[in-house]
Amino acid sequence: MTTAPPRTHTDLLETFRTVRTLTDRLTRDLSPEDQTPQSMTEASPVKWHRAHTTWFFEEFVLGADPAYRPRHPAFRFLFNSYYEAVGARHPRPDRGLVTRPGVAEVAAYRRDVEEQVDAALEAGRLDDDRLALVELGCHHEQQHQELLLMDLKHLLSRNIVQPVYVERAPDEHSPTAPCTWTHVPGGLAEIGHDGLGFAYDNEGPRHRVWLEDVELASRQVANGEWMEFIADGGYTRPELWLSDGWGALQGSDRRAPGYWQQEDDGAWTTFTLSGRRPVIAAEPVCHVSFFEADAFARWAGCRLPTEQEWEAWATSRPRVDGPLLDPDRCHPAPASDVTLGGVWEWTSSAYLPYPGFAPVEGAVGEYNGKFMNDQHVLRGASAVTPPGHQRTTYRNFYPAASTWAFTGLRLAR
Amino acid sequence: MTTAPPRTHTDLLETFRTVRTLTDRLTRDLSPEDQTPQSMTEASPVKWHRAHTTWFFEEFVLGADPAYRPRHPAFRFLFNSYYEAVGARHPRPDRGLVTRPGVAEVAAYRRDVEEQVDAALEAGRLDDDRLALVELGCHHEQQHQELLLMDLKHLLSRNIVQPVYVERAPDEHSPTAPCTWTHVPGGLAEIGHDGLGFAYDNEGPRHRVWLEDVELASRQVANGEWMEFIADGGYTRPELWLSDGWGALQGSDRRAPGYWQQEDDGAWTTFTLSGRRPVIAAEPVCHVSFFEADAFARWAGCRLPTEQEWEAWATSRPRVDGPLLDPDRCHPAPASDVTLGGVWEWTSSAYLPYPGFAPVEGAVGEYNGKFMNDQHVLRGASAVTPPGHQRTTYRNFYPAASTWAFTGLRLAR
Amino acid sequence: MTTAPPRTHTDLLETFRTVRTLTDRLTRDLSPEDQTPQSMTEASPVKWHRAHTTWFFEEFVLGADPAYRPRHPAFRFLFNSYYEAVGARHPRPDRGLVTRPGVAEVAAYRRDVEEQVDAALEAGRLDDDRLALVELGCHHEQQHQELLLMDLKHLLSRNIVQPVYVERAPDEHSPTAPCTWTHVPGGLAEIGHDGLGFAYDNEGPRHRVWLEDVELASRQVANGEWMEFIADGGYTRPELWLSDGWGALQGSDRRAPGYWQQEDDGAWTTFTLSGRRPVIAAEPVCHVSFFEADAFARWAGCRLPTEQEWEAWATSRPRVDGPLLDPDRCHPAPASDVTLGGVWEWTSSAYLPYPGFAPVEGAVGEYNGKFMNDQHVLRGASAVTPPGHQRTTYRNFYPAASTWAFTGLRLAR
Amino acid sequence: MTTAPPRTHTDLLETFRTVRTLTDRLTRDLSPEDQTPQSMTEASPVKWHRAHTTWFFEEFVLGADPAYRPRHPAFRFLFNSYYEAVGARHPRPDRGLVTRPGVAEVAAYRRDVEEQVDAALEAGRLDDDRLALVELGCHHEQQHQELLLMDLKHLLSRNIVQPVYVERAPDEHSPTAPCTWTHVPGGLAEIGHDGLGFAYDNEGPRHRVWLEDVELASRQVANGEWMEFIADGGYTRPELWLSDGWGALQGSDRRAPGYWQQEDDGAWTTFTLSGRRPVIAAEPVCHVSFFEADAFARWAGCRLPTEQEWEAWATSRPRVDGPLLDPDRCHPAPASDVTLGGVWEWTSSAYLPYPGFAPVEGAVGEYNGKFMNDQHVLRGASAVTPPGHQRTTYRNFYPAASTWAFTGLRLAR
Repeated sequence: MTTAPPRTHTDLLETFRTVRTLTDRLTRDLSPEDQTPQSMTEASPVKWHRAHTTWFFEEFVLGADPAYRPRHPAFRFLFNSYYEAVGARHPRPDRGLVTRPGVAEVAAYRRDVEEQVDAALEAGRLDDDRLALVELGCHHEQQHQELLLMDLKHLLSRNIVQPVYVERAPDEHSPTAPCTWTHVPGGLAEIGHDGLGFAYDNEGPRHRVWLEDVELASRQVANGEWMEFIADGGYTRPELWLSDGWGALQGSDRRAPGYWQQEDDGAWTTFTLSGRRPVIAAEPVCHVSFFEADAFARWAGCRLPTEQEWEAWATSRPRVDGPLLDPDRCHPAPASDVTLGGVWEWTSSAYLPYPGFAPVEGAVGEYNGKFMNDQHVLRGASAVTPPGHQRTTYRNFYPAASTWAFTGLRLAR
Repeated sequence: MTTAPPRTHTDLLETFRTVRTLTDRLTRDLSPEDQTPQSMTEASPVKWHRAHTTWFFEEFVLGADPAYRPRHPAFRFLFNSYYEAVGARHPRPDRGLVTRPGVAEVAAYRRDVEEQVDAALEAGRLDDDRLALVELGCHHEQQHQELLLMDLKHLLSRNIVQPVYVERAPDEHSPTAPCTWTHVPGGLAEIGHDGLGFAYDNEGPRHRVWLEDVELASRQVANGEWMEFIADGGYTRPELWLSDGWGALQGSDRRAPGYWQQEDDGAWTTFTLSGRRPVIAAEPVCHVSFFEADAFARWAGCRLPTEQEWEAWATSRPRVDGPLLDPDRCHPAPASDVTLGGVWEWTSSAYLPYPGFAPVEGAVGEYNGKFMNDQHVLRGASAVTPPGHQRTTYRNFYPAASTWAFTGLRLAR
Repeated sequence: MTTAPPRTHTDLLETFRTVRTLTDRLTRDLSPEDQTPQSMTEASPVKWHRAHTTWFFEEFVLGADPAYRPRHPAFRFLFNSYYEAVGARHPRPDRGLVTRPGVAEVAAYRRDVEEQVDAALEAGRLDDDRLALVELGCHHEQQHQELLLMDLKHLLSRNIVQPVYVERAPDEHSPTAPCTWTHVPGGLAEIGHDGLGFAYDNEGPRHRVWLEDVELASRQVANGEWMEFIADGGYTRPELWLSDGWGALQGSDRRAPGYWQQEDDGAWTTFTLSGRRPVIAAEPVCHVSFFEADAFARWAGCRLPTEQEWEAWATSRPRVDGPLLDPDRCHPAPASDVTLGGVWEWTSSAYLPYPGFAPVEGAVGEYNGKFMNDQHVLRGASAVTPPGHQRTTYRNFYPAASTWAFTGLRLAR
Repeated sequence: MTTAPPRTHTDLLETFRTVRTLTDRLTRDLSPEDQTPQSMTEASPVKWHRAHTTWFFEEFVLGADPAYRPRHPAFRFLFNSYYEAVGARHPRPDRGLVTRPGVAEVAAYRRDVEEQVDAALEAGRLDDDRLALVELGCHHEQQHQELLLMDLKHLLSRNIVQPVYVERAPDEHSPTAPCTWTHVPGGLAEIGHDGLGFAYDNEGPRHRVWLEDVELASRQVANGEWMEFIADGGYTRPELWLSDGWGALQGSDRRAPGYWQQEDDGAWTTFTLSGRRPVIAAEPVCHVSFFEADAFARWAGCRLPTEQEWEAWATSRPRVDGPLLDPDRCHPAPASDVTLGGVWEWTSSAYLPYPGFAPVEGAVGEYNGKFMNDQHVLRGASAVTPPGHQRTTYRNFYPAASTWAFTGLRLAR
């Protein structure tokens, strides 16, 4: 997916092992029951994520060897996500109905494929194309680590018992960091990945854009500010909203970020991967839709940055990473001056190909390009993005109404 | 639910143990994964069936003691099916999203409640009302044993792997039994349960009806006959169908009983609890809707019997039971001269209260009466009905389009 | 549709002219705009009713002559309602999109067909089959006169302007007639049409049924009583409702009969064919669903009668007709001791074939039989039923949730 | 909506009269029936367009006078389209149910408001704000002239009779113009409206963008080329399609542009405002979705231009206008070297605000900005765009799946 020289067998072996181990760590304490259901079409079972990330290595790395015979031919059908070129696949809304293979068989499948990839890397017998696909597979699995946690959170939230995935002490309230503004001067800028190191195909080609002067906030919008927005009638004033966003509000009862709930005493709580907890005012707001982020920005007399402005800002200052995924937390924390971490930041940009973009040849070319309509770009990273997966050129994308990702915003003006 | 004298502690203890043991037997070989998902709103997870049947004893038997404190208060909410008088309940379409409690906790819950009911029966300390509710609870659990198998079959069928629940040898083809006709003379007849032994409230009160002469077939319609119906254009001739049935056909691709599939060589297979298997011509047709049964009867120049005709027929001749639930088979078998067994038989009757029907007081009064609209009565029993649960007065009911129950038909003329 | 001797050319000519004239009268003051749209799938445009009733005569009477050539072949497709045997037809939900032919062309079509039928009747040149179809066509058109007014009411109600179809003076409040009870003794009874005079096929064959003693109320339930039901929490108590009815309530805001609205001062108004008006307490309640009627009866400690009980009652006493359709009113009026009129009365009976029922051969056999599932029988007649169309054996039918017909109830106990 | 000096009373009076007269001309031959129904939520009745364009003048021009009293207060509610700031409005999907006011009343309403605006213009007594709103109202009405024809075409197409709106002679086949390529050199470009003359707010502010070199085709893609795309399996190759477009195909039968139909002899016909006609190979393809346009471009080894590239191209060469709206044709024609006309051209750009965009204050600020998500920009003009409404900076927009507008494409590479 990149023009950079592929990494060495040794480098990739270490990366591969690290990534695979993290998936095991994240699912270690989940029961087979937790790993089986699908809570909505957009989400997938934990078990499916574990199998699909393995399938990716099997299909594109092991499968490149014409002599390779899959041990479970049905898995090719069951665990393909959306690669049309690979052939038919299990219908997405029915992923939660696949009870067999079970968790133990999926674990064995993981081990089996893993050992073969590991052995091939150790033996140094993969060509450059395969090496590049191993690297892509590692990033793919990291991406699914975040999806797995988002999907798990959504699933657990639907249980009245409000189960706990990560046991941890209560968060303490702390003052919200002041918000200052960083000036980003306009002019001709270069945007996109430069080909050094790994990137997805949608991050390139690097290209020139013309930007006007802009200022971006020093931190993400905080929960306390969102409470002010609510108290000021933010959800009842149509002039703040895009028409589709306002229309969606009229058909729904939700008048707060995803997972928030107002208790009988008026206090706000939110569902977290550690169960239901009070909303912490200083934390970045999370699980807001593009429509909500856009309305908030308008209410605040600001706007969302474009993705180009965001990238120009991110590269114009010393980069600060975190909070990223900590398996013992899996939740944002108050922070300031962060570049990549906490919550994904909605931009005002539609997810479209960069000038000159062309997907790579073959099935992996379906990775990104074919989703380039009616989605919105998010930049940054979140508290469930695995370390090493964050990049200033990273283009995350979701439909405007989505709220189950760890999504917030940073203001521009 | 009956006017019969309640049975003794001793009798019920034996029944209770037998019923509970059968549920354990049926779920013994199912993984937690198999027991968790819900394949459609009308179906429930296996785990839920196991918990709900236990909840019924806890709520109505143990809960009658004001000193009783539930160990898991949330279970009252999670495992209530539809009893409005008991309070709020988990939304039905989301039963598959409850991953906790898991299968082990549900098993512990079963043991816990079971021991308490068992002890109360052994100690002979339940009053007549509670004894009646233990008896009702046993029948309720038997009913859910059949539902559990229907729902499991539906779930497994959605997996391309077409998993096997019961390992067993292939069925052999055998000639279809000839069909003869039994004359049932008309006149004033008494219908409904007479109060001796257990019955659901909807089977009474016993009452008089006027019937005209009728003939019923000696056996259920067989798969081979259904293939003739298909071959004769049964699914393409609107004059055979009720308008709603024809309309439903136009919006669907299915042109055969539920689970049937025509293979590349033209042969029909069907999904069974032992995986996908060839359709056996001599077996009773199964998984047909009321619309299909009605259309078939019209094609055959006959009609469906009313439930009153059916009951008059069933009580006018020596009763023959079976095939009923055999955990090592869970599938109909060729049979003739059966009264109760094989497949449930659609009647032409709507599911309505008998003259003078009144539900019992309190929450258990919601058992049957409130479903009396837009459903159709089935009589008999099926190859997944547990022995002891069958009765000639039994009124099973489903919406006209349902096909996931083990439903077939017997002709009248 | 009957075994009675067909009526004479002379008789039918008079009936034909009377019926056709009434349709013209009812649509006389409606603009082309009023006659074009379709407000919901179940309703049809006025223009369509006018054309379809004409098509019926053309298709079944004129079309019987092999030499007949339709002037507008497309009309056969456009104005067929549901006769599969006649061929393809315009999709029902799209009836409001047919702007051409327009109202003037439909009027010309009416005249054209009418003159031919009239001439044939005058010349006495129709055989018995055709005469029977003319008679059926007249009853068919009467039935559509009521449908036309129901559908028009529904359409006009959707306009905020709340338009007036019939100008008339306000109704005055009057005391509600006292409700007494008529005893109907049980025993063997004969039910259904006896073949003397016209009836639809679904009213026969006449047959014996066994009835128990019952009492029916002397008048229909009144609006004032319904207000008490509302005030007593009738819409908030699940124990009064069938499960499907209660479920429907949870997904809707309506907590009163169709077209009712509570004004700012707490008073109830209702939309009528004379615009929005105060609810008159003494009038029979109208536009209630089967679910509402059933819940009300349970609340009142009574029940709905079966259709057999209703017919036994109706024929056991002097028959009183009215209020029926008065083009200058089109609205129920307070009344007592009425047999046929005011509002249709929901019974507890499902709409099913009588024993021995067989539809007539050919396309007109689709008139009734194919709708015999998941509908509920109503008996009596309403204030928009044209005089001459009412019969004690008449079986009207609607789905349980329907409220756009003029539907009320009479209690039994 | 512009920074240009408002036009004079005299200029605007002439424009106003011209625009209003064209609406009358377009609806002159339509019956009340034709003008009443709504064929889908996105479309509106002809009558509604006539009333809504009038309401715009009443609300924003006449209504600015505090002494103004609307003759029909309900019209404010009935004919508001989406202006939240103006107050409640009639639900969009129900526009076809408003039969009163009828066509004659709407015509009278038009005359009434028209005379008052006309008089105010003639008397020269409007301030600059009102003058600007008159100008906006004229453009608004022109926009609705095109919508009216699109919506009418959709409505008439749903009638099996396939009615004719414009009588005209058959089109003759002619050779398709050759396609050449125009080079547009990259660099810093200025895009957007410069404030001279009228423009919608979304066309500004004018701003700088950086473009790379590009070539655009000399003409729009023609029907003959689209037939090649179909013949080459264009609709069956997932690699050509965006994922959402491919998904939509799987749920639909359509495998050709909107209104196309393949006749029994294999020839393609299309529904036009002159009835069903053969597809003319040399005409630009029309009624394709963004997904189809994008897939075609990929198939052709090209791509869609961005809107910035399109505008740079359009202003880099002598502008050629037409075919635009000719009331005696209302259909595209073969053409080459056209800048603005024939069919709207899908671009690859999402509909987003230009840098620095801010809607005008007040209700008319809802004109454009609030629709800026999940829509796609089209440039150019079509054969139903009224002359005078076309601009090289014009930004038309529709959702990606829309096909009822006159939409085609021009290739870039």
